[in-house]
Amino acid sequence: MPISDADRDDITSRLSRIEGQIQGLKRMVEEDRYCGDILDQIHSVQQALKSVGRAITRNHLETCVTEAIRSGDESAAQESYDEIIGLLEKEL
Amino acid sequence: MPISDADRDDITSRLSRIEGQIQGLKRMVEEDRYCGDILDQIHSVQQALKSVGRAITRNHLETCVTEAIRSGDESAAQESYDEIIGLLEKEL
Amino acid sequence: MPISDADRDDITSRLSRIEGQIQGLKRMVEEDRYCGDILDQIHSVQQALKSVGRAITRNHLETCVTEAIRSGDESAAQESYDEIIGLLEKEL
Amino acid sequence: MPISDADRDDITSRLSRIEGQIQGLKRMVEEDRYCGDILDQIHSVQQALKSVGRAITRNHLETCVTEAIRSGDESAAQESYDEIIGLLEKEL
Repeated sequence: MPISDADRDDITSRLSRIEGQIQGLKRMVEEDRYCGDILDQIHSVQQALKSVGRAITRNHLETCVTEAIRSGDESAAQESYDEIIGLLEKEL
Repeated sequence: MPISDADRDDITSRLSRIEGQIQGLKRMVEEDRYCGDILDQIHSVQQALKSVGRAITRNHLETCVTEAIRSGDESAAQESYDEIIGLLEKEL
Repeated sequence: MPISDADRDDITSRLSRIEGQIQGLKRMVEEDRYCGDILDQIHSVQQALKSVGRAITRNHLETCVTEAIRSGDESAAQESYDEIIGLLEKEL
Repeated sequence: MPISDADRDDITSRLSRIEGQIQGLKRMVEEDRYCGDILDQIHSVQQALKSVGRAITRNHLETCVTEAIRSGDESAAQESYDEIIGLLEKEL
């Protein structure tokens, strides 16, 4: 990255929560819970992951991308643009 | 659901793999790995979750939704349609 | 389909509005308007198209899909499930 | 923007093709064509619009965003980051 200590702690604790949600999902499947509820839970995990992705993307823009664009190195800047377009394509 | 034993085992083992991927993500963040790589890994988890969601959705269509539509109970059928539209809206 | 006359009129008038939005987009591009505004307008068209897609999907569920599932023909039902999963995959 | 003449021509001709696709969609609805085919056509238009959105986004990154980040004006840079995150949120 480099990512600040505060941001790193925030992101790892969010990932721990997501890990817990996945364990909850496994239990729901094992207990034969209603599909609709399981699908809602999968949707929650997707949203939580998207939100972590946004936080990391923002950090990435503020550090690596900004550096690449400011460096005056045109091919480094182009790579950053490609990367951002790639994120849009992945719907991250 | 009801979900078959084989499907349930498949889904829980996929969720265990996803759990492992989340743990891998935490390590990547803690080790300050390149953002682009972390974002790629988040994308992989999203795809894996979508794929689990599709498997559960298919099971749901084959069981609950089919039953609701065949029951002849119009309001049960309408609820199923709403649920499917809801899945589209959540981009599950 | 078959689609009711009222629904058909609603959908064609929505498509006419979308056509107007596309013409507006062309003007914005020709007049060198701010990219951010153009992108917002593209997003509006996407939402309007999604909404038309949902209306057609709902009609499809209420007619063809229901018929296929009620027919008792297992392969017709399976095709309907495939089609719904396909819509999810296309994020329609 | 500013957008180059070549890019502007490319984008407006793509938008004209999309306009034609929308007119085709209206005809399909009026002629009561199979829903599945109409939904496929809607999906094609969505993809074509996404592709126009990507082209405009790339131009935006190369011009406005690059300028904002290079200006040294921190709040202008932050606005650009917000805008990119906004594009991800809109799944443009």
